[in-house]
Amino acid sequence: MATKKFAGPSPYTFTPTYPKVDYFYTEYLENVTTKQKGRACAVPVVGAIFGLGRAGSIHLTSIMNNHRIILKYIVDDRSDMFENIRKYWKLSKDVIFLTSKESEKVYKDKSVNVVFIGSPTYTHHDIVISSIANDKDVFCEKPIAESIEDTKKCYEAAKSKGRKLFAAFNRRFDPDYRSLKDKVRQGTVGHVQILKVTARDSPLPSIDYLRTSGGVFHDCLVHDFDMSCWVLGELPIRVQATASALIPEVKAINDFDTIAFLLTFPSGAIAIGDNSRYSAYGYDQRLEVFGNNGMLKVENERPCSSLESYLGYEGVKVNPIFYSFPSRFKAAYKNELEHFLDVVQYGDPMEVTSWQTLAVSKIATAAEESARTGKGVEIDWSKEK
Amino acid sequence: MATKKFAGPSPYTFTPTYPKVDYFYTEYLENVTTKQKGRACAVPVVGAIFGLGRAGSIHLTSIMNNHRIILKYIVDDRSDMFENIRKYWKLSKDVIFLTSKESEKVYKDKSVNVVFIGSPTYTHHDIVISSIANDKDVFCEKPIAESIEDTKKCYEAAKSKGRKLFAAFNRRFDPDYRSLKDKVRQGTVGHVQILKVTARDSPLPSIDYLRTSGGVFHDCLVHDFDMSCWVLGELPIRVQATASALIPEVKAINDFDTIAFLLTFPSGAIAIGDNSRYSAYGYDQRLEVFGNNGMLKVENERPCSSLESYLGYEGVKVNPIFYSFPSRFKAAYKNELEHFLDVVQYGDPMEVTSWQTLAVSKIATAAEESARTGKGVEIDWSKEK
Amino acid sequence: MATKKFAGPSPYTFTPTYPKVDYFYTEYLENVTTKQKGRACAVPVVGAIFGLGRAGSIHLTSIMNNHRIILKYIVDDRSDMFENIRKYWKLSKDVIFLTSKESEKVYKDKSVNVVFIGSPTYTHHDIVISSIANDKDVFCEKPIAESIEDTKKCYEAAKSKGRKLFAAFNRRFDPDYRSLKDKVRQGTVGHVQILKVTARDSPLPSIDYLRTSGGVFHDCLVHDFDMSCWVLGELPIRVQATASALIPEVKAINDFDTIAFLLTFPSGAIAIGDNSRYSAYGYDQRLEVFGNNGMLKVENERPCSSLESYLGYEGVKVNPIFYSFPSRFKAAYKNELEHFLDVVQYGDPMEVTSWQTLAVSKIATAAEESARTGKGVEIDWSKEK
Amino acid sequence: MATKKFAGPSPYTFTPTYPKVDYFYTEYLENVTTKQKGRACAVPVVGAIFGLGRAGSIHLTSIMNNHRIILKYIVDDRSDMFENIRKYWKLSKDVIFLTSKESEKVYKDKSVNVVFIGSPTYTHHDIVISSIANDKDVFCEKPIAESIEDTKKCYEAAKSKGRKLFAAFNRRFDPDYRSLKDKVRQGTVGHVQILKVTARDSPLPSIDYLRTSGGVFHDCLVHDFDMSCWVLGELPIRVQATASALIPEVKAINDFDTIAFLLTFPSGAIAIGDNSRYSAYGYDQRLEVFGNNGMLKVENERPCSSLESYLGYEGVKVNPIFYSFPSRFKAAYKNELEHFLDVVQYGDPMEVTSWQTLAVSKIATAAEESARTGKGVEIDWSKEK
Repeated sequence: MATKKFAGPSPYTFTPTYPKVDYFYTEYLENVTTKQKGRACAVPVVGAIFGLGRAGSIHLTSIMNNHRIILKYIVDDRSDMFENIRKYWKLSKDVIFLTSKESEKVYKDKSVNVVFIGSPTYTHHDIVISSIANDKDVFCEKPIAESIEDTKKCYEAAKSKGRKLFAAFNRRFDPDYRSLKDKVRQGTVGHVQILKVTARDSPLPSIDYLRTSGGVFHDCLVHDFDMSCWVLGELPIRVQATASALIPEVKAINDFDTIAFLLTFPSGAIAIGDNSRYSAYGYDQRLEVFGNNGMLKVENERPCSSLESYLGYEGVKVNPIFYSFPSRFKAAYKNELEHFLDVVQYGDPMEVTSWQTLAVSKIATAAEESARTGKGVEIDWSKEK
Repeated sequence: MATKKFAGPSPYTFTPTYPKVDYFYTEYLENVTTKQKGRACAVPVVGAIFGLGRAGSIHLTSIMNNHRIILKYIVDDRSDMFENIRKYWKLSKDVIFLTSKESEKVYKDKSVNVVFIGSPTYTHHDIVISSIANDKDVFCEKPIAESIEDTKKCYEAAKSKGRKLFAAFNRRFDPDYRSLKDKVRQGTVGHVQILKVTARDSPLPSIDYLRTSGGVFHDCLVHDFDMSCWVLGELPIRVQATASALIPEVKAINDFDTIAFLLTFPSGAIAIGDNSRYSAYGYDQRLEVFGNNGMLKVENERPCSSLESYLGYEGVKVNPIFYSFPSRFKAAYKNELEHFLDVVQYGDPMEVTSWQTLAVSKIATAAEESARTGKGVEIDWSKEK
Repeated sequence: MATKKFAGPSPYTFTPTYPKVDYFYTEYLENVTTKQKGRACAVPVVGAIFGLGRAGSIHLTSIMNNHRIILKYIVDDRSDMFENIRKYWKLSKDVIFLTSKESEKVYKDKSVNVVFIGSPTYTHHDIVISSIANDKDVFCEKPIAESIEDTKKCYEAAKSKGRKLFAAFNRRFDPDYRSLKDKVRQGTVGHVQILKVTARDSPLPSIDYLRTSGGVFHDCLVHDFDMSCWVLGELPIRVQATASALIPEVKAINDFDTIAFLLTFPSGAIAIGDNSRYSAYGYDQRLEVFGNNGMLKVENERPCSSLESYLGYEGVKVNPIFYSFPSRFKAAYKNELEHFLDVVQYGDPMEVTSWQTLAVSKIATAAEESARTGKGVEIDWSKEK
Repeated sequence: MATKKFAGPSPYTFTPTYPKVDYFYTEYLENVTTKQKGRACAVPVVGAIFGLGRAGSIHLTSIMNNHRIILKYIVDDRSDMFENIRKYWKLSKDVIFLTSKESEKVYKDKSVNVVFIGSPTYTHHDIVISSIANDKDVFCEKPIAESIEDTKKCYEAAKSKGRKLFAAFNRRFDPDYRSLKDKVRQGTVGHVQILKVTARDSPLPSIDYLRTSGGVFHDCLVHDFDMSCWVLGELPIRVQATASALIPEVKAINDFDTIAFLLTFPSGAIAIGDNSRYSAYGYDQRLEVFGNNGMLKVENERPCSSLESYLGYEGVKVNPIFYSFPSRFKAAYKNELEHFLDVVQYGDPMEVTSWQTLAVSKIATAAEESARTGKGVEIDWSKEK
C-alpha cells in the first residue's frame, strides 16, 4: 500500500477549474451560459459580403456559423450559383443576392452596418471607399488595395469617417501563434534573440494567380514579416534576402518560388525565414522564438493527430499535416471574425493597424530588392509615422 | 548540385489531390461547391429539441451550426432562460419556446419531422414514444430509456412505425476512433489480438448525478464495451472485472470510481479496459488495437498541440489534453448529427442499431457482477437476437 | 525592442548546472573526474562468466565495457569459438577459456570473487551453489533455478554464506522505468489507481525455446508482475487472467501467445496488463501509472527518434521502435551490472530480493490457473515471509 | 470474429529480419557473431593519445570501450592525475604515461601506428607533423591547426608520406544526421530547395575559451557550413550573414553570440542557419531539408524521451533535450572512431577530406565579413582545388 498515503483529500473538496487553452471548452461554456466572453449579447450586426471565391467562401462559412451577424446581401457576379448557395446554406428569403453592378443597393441600405470583402484584389479599393463613405465598417481580405497609395487612401477615408477598416491577417488569430506571441510579450523566453518563421504553401497556386499576385514578396512574405514584427514588437533596420525560381513556369514570369531572408532588429534580435510556393506534403506553417531564457515553437497541426500506426519496421506513422490554409486556419478565420465583431459591437481596440500594414509592405519591397541585388538593404523608419 | 538531378517534372504537370483525413478541407470544398458529400442538397428537416442541459446544449450548438435543419421548437422548463437563448443564438421569431407541459404542440405539429432529446434520462421513454407515434424520427442522447425493457419498447415502436431511433453513441463518430475502426476492418493490423480502451472522466461528475446514474458500469463502461464490440465486430463470451471505490463519497453510495475489465472473444481476441470517474489532468480517452500485423493507437488529442515550450531543464512541455467531452468530442457531436441527417434525408443505413445498444447493456450487467463477486461471467448469446 | 527589457543578467553570472536525467552527461563527468558516483575507485573485482549464448553475450559486452571488472575465465562448451572471441574482444593472455567440465578451476580459484551466469536455465542451480560454496558473489540471469524449491535453496545458500545472489531483472534498471518508479514513490501521481503494463516480444522465440521455457506465465509475465509490484510497493490479493493461443505452433504445445490480466491490490490499486509472444513492429514495452494527481507513462523508445519524414500525404513518419531486448535495454544491462558491482564493491543494498523473486513466481502460477479456468484466484500472503 | 480472416500464415513461416536503423541491435549481432561489419577481425592498432581535457577525455572513453585499439601512451602535462586515471580506467602496466616533454618517445616508438590528438589547438600542428613524419596515422580533434596555412601544411605532409589525417567533425557521424544525408543523396526529397540548420551551444563556454577560440564563425559556424555542404554536395556562391552580441562579456571581446546566415548554392538551393553561444534549455542541434518531394528533419534527441508526465492542467511534459555535446553526440564520437579505424585497418575511404576542411574555413571568413559589413559576399571557387 506504498502509495495510499499520497491519496490526499477527496476530489469533491476541490473547486473545479479548467485549462484556458481548451478554447473549445470555453466556447461550450459560452453556449451553455449564453454569454459572449462574459458579456451580455449585443445587437447583431447586419452585413453584406462581396465575392464568394476561395477567400469569400471561407468568410461566408464563418458568417453563417456566427450568431452575431444577420447577413442581408451577397454580391457576386456568378448569378447562376445563387440558387445553389441559397439552398445549401438554407438562406431565408431575407437574404438578397446581387451582382456587382447592383452594389449601390448595399451602400445605400442604411440597415447594413458591416461589409465583408472577399472579391478580387483590384475591386477592394472601390468597395472599401464606397462602404466607408456610407458609414459602414469594413472587413477586408488582405491586401486592402493594389498599391501602397491606394491602401493609404482607404485608411485615411476610414479615419476621417471614424469607421473601422480591418485587414484580415488571419495568422495572427490562430490560437497557437497568438499563444506564442502572448508568452513572448510576457517575457517567457526573456530577450528574444532568434525568431524563425517557415511558410510553405499548398497546393501550388495557379500560374494565372501568380501572374497577378504582385510577386511572392508582396503576396506571401508580407505574412512572415508581419508575424516577425508582431511577435517581436519592433521593426527591422536591415533586410537581407535570397531567392530562387526552381519551377520553370515561375521563372518564366520572373518571380521566385523559394525565398529566404534575415531581418536585423534594433534590440539585436534576428528574424530568419524561409518561404516556398509549393510543399508536396501539405501546408507547412511554423514559428519559433528563441530567447535567453528558452524557446517556444509552433509546429504544424495535423487533423486527427492522435492516430498512430505501427506496421512492420517501416516506422511509426501519424497523419499528414493540414493540406491548405482553409483547414489549417479554420479557427483563425473564426477568431478574426469574432475580433472584428468585438471591435464593431463593443469598441474593443483593433489588432491590425494601418501602420503595421504599411510597414510590412515596405519590408517586402526592401526584401525583394535584396534578393534581386544580393545586397543588404537598410531601412530608416524615422521618416515614417 | 548533387540533388538537382532529382528535381523531376514541374509540379504544374501534376493533378492536385489532397489527403482525405483533412476533414476540415473536405468541409471547405463542400462549402465552396455547395454539395453535401457530393450530393445535391436535400430539403432541410424541421426539428424540435427537448432539454437544454449539458448534453442538450451541445446538440443545440450542432443544430445551430448545421444548415440542414430548421429548428422550430425548443422545449425546456427553465422559461426564464428563453429570452437569453433567443438573443444569444439570434433566433428568429419562427422559433417557438415551450415548457414540457406544452410538448403536445410539438407532437401534433405535422411540419416537425425530427425530434432531438437532451432532457434527463427519466423523460426519454415518453418523448421517444410520443414522437414516434406522431411519425417523427428521433435522435436521443443515450441511454434510450432507464431500463432494458423500456429501451426494447422504444425500438419496437420505431420499428413498427418505420421511424428512425438513433442512440447517440458519440465516440463512434469521432474521426480518430472511426479511422482506427475502418483500418481494423480493412485488415490493416491482421487478426486483432488485443484491444485496449482507456476512459477517464473529467471533470468529476457531481455526487447527485452519480446517485441517479445507474452505476458506473451502465453509465460509463457501456461506451467502452460498445467501442470494443464495434471495432472487433464480435461479442464477448467471457467477462472478468474488478473495481475499487477510492473516493469516499463514491464508496458511500456503493458505486465504483476505478474499474478494469477483460473481455474474451470467440476469435481469441481479448479486450482490456480501464475506466475512472476522475482524471486530474483532463479527459483521457484512448484506444489501441494490436494484431498480428501491427498496432494502431488513438492517443489523446490536445488543443493547440503544436505549441512546444523549452524552458530551462524542466523538460519540454506541450499543451494539456482536452478538459472534457464537449471539447474533445466536438467533431464527433457534429458528425453524429450529420449521420442522423444522412439517415433521415437520404436513407443511409443507421450506424448504431438496437441490437448493439441492448448487447452492450447486457455486458455491463455481467461486468458489474464480475467486479462484485470476483468471478468470471460467461455470456451465452445464442438466445439473443 | 519589446522584449529587450526581459534580458536579465548575463549568463556569465550564473553557476552552471545540468539536468540529472541526462545520464550520458553524468557518465561523461565521471570519466572526466575519474570518480564513480563521486566515490574513489574500488579495487576491480575478478570475474568468471558461464555461457556465451544470447544472454551471456550481452553480459560479456557489459563486462568488456566496464572498467571495474577484470575478467579471468570464460566458460562455454563451444570451444571452436574461443579463438574468435579472443580476437574480437582483444583479450589478453590472462583471460582463460574453459569448457564446463573444467568449471572446478573457476570455483577453486580464490582470486575470482564474482561469477556471472548466462548459461541455460537447467545449469543455473549447480553453478550458483558451487560458486557460493566457494565464497563468490553471483550475478545470475533470471530465473535463478528451474523450480521454486531450487530457487529457495540457492537463496538460502547465499544467505548462510553471506554472499550476494543477484537475479538480473533487467527492466528494473532501465532509466525510464526507474524514473517512473521513483516518481511514483515520491507521490508524484498521488495514490495509484491504475497501473498498466504492456509487453510484446520481438522477434518470436523459436518453438524449441518455448517448449522448455516453463510456459509464458513463468517465462514472460513474471516481468510484468515484478514491474507492477515493484512500482506499487504492494502484493496483489486477487488475480484474474485470460489467454489465447493464436499461433498454431504455440497452441500445439498447450501454451499461450496472447495474455491479459488484472491484479487487485489491498490499497484498491488495480494493475492491468497485456503480453504477447510476437509483435510485428518491434519490441513493445510500455508502462503507465494513473493516480488521483496525474499520470506517468513510459512509451517506447526508438533509435534515432528525432528523424522525421514528411513525404506526400501519407503522413509523418518516425523511426520504428527498438527491435528487441538487447537494443531496447542496452542501458538497463549496463546499469544492472553497475548495481551489482556497487553491491559487491561498496556494500550498497541489493535491489532485487529473494522475497520478490519468489512472490512473482507465485503470482504467475495463480495467473495461469485463472487463465485456464476462467475463475479469479485469491492469494493469501499471510503465510509467506 | 470480424478480423480472424486477416490472420494469415503463422509467424513461424517467416524468416526474421530487423530494421537496420536499430544500430544497437546491429552492435549486439556483431558481438554475438564476433564479426566487425561482417569482416573478420583485423589486428588491433597500437595508439597514443595527447591531451585529456574536455575533448581528449571523450576520445579516451571511446578508445577504452573499443576493442580494436591497444592504447600504449597517454601524454598530458597534469602528471598528478596519472594515478587516478590508471585506477579509474583499470589500465594495465603496459600503458605508459608521459608529459609533453617526453613526446619524442611516442614518435620514436615504431609499434605505435595511430595518434589521437585532444590537446589545445596551438599544439596540434607540431604533433600532427611529428606523428606523420614518423609514419603514424592521425586522428585530430578539429581544427587541424590554428591557421589555414598550417592546416594545408599538415595535409600536405600526410599526403606526401601516404598517411591518414582525420579531422574529427563529429556531427557527420551522428546516426540521425547521417541518415538524413543518406536519404537526401538517394533523392528522397527530390531537389533540395531549403536546408535549415540550428546550433545552440550549452553550456556557455568560458570567456577565456572564447578569447582564444578564433571567433564564433571559425569556432562554431564551421560545423553548420560543413553540414550544409556535406548534405547538399555543393559549395555556396553567395554568403549573407548578420550577428549580434547580446551578452556583454562577448561584446567586450568583439565577438558575437547570436548569428544567422544565408548560403546560396549553384543549384538554386538555399541554406539558412542560426547559431547561438548559449541555450538555456540544453544543447539544441537540428537539421532540416526541404525539397520538391518532401521534407526530412532531425529534431533534438532527448535522454529517456519516452517518459511522459500528465500532472494537472499545466500540460504534458517530456524530458529535456541533451545538455551538451558529450551526451548528445556520444554515438557520433564512437562512430567517428570506428570510421577512423576502418580507414586505417581496412583502407576504407576517408569521409572528411582536406578539401572540405579548407572550403568550410573559407566560407566562415566570408560569413564573418558579411556580418560585420552588412553586405553579401560572393565566393569564387574556380581558383580552388
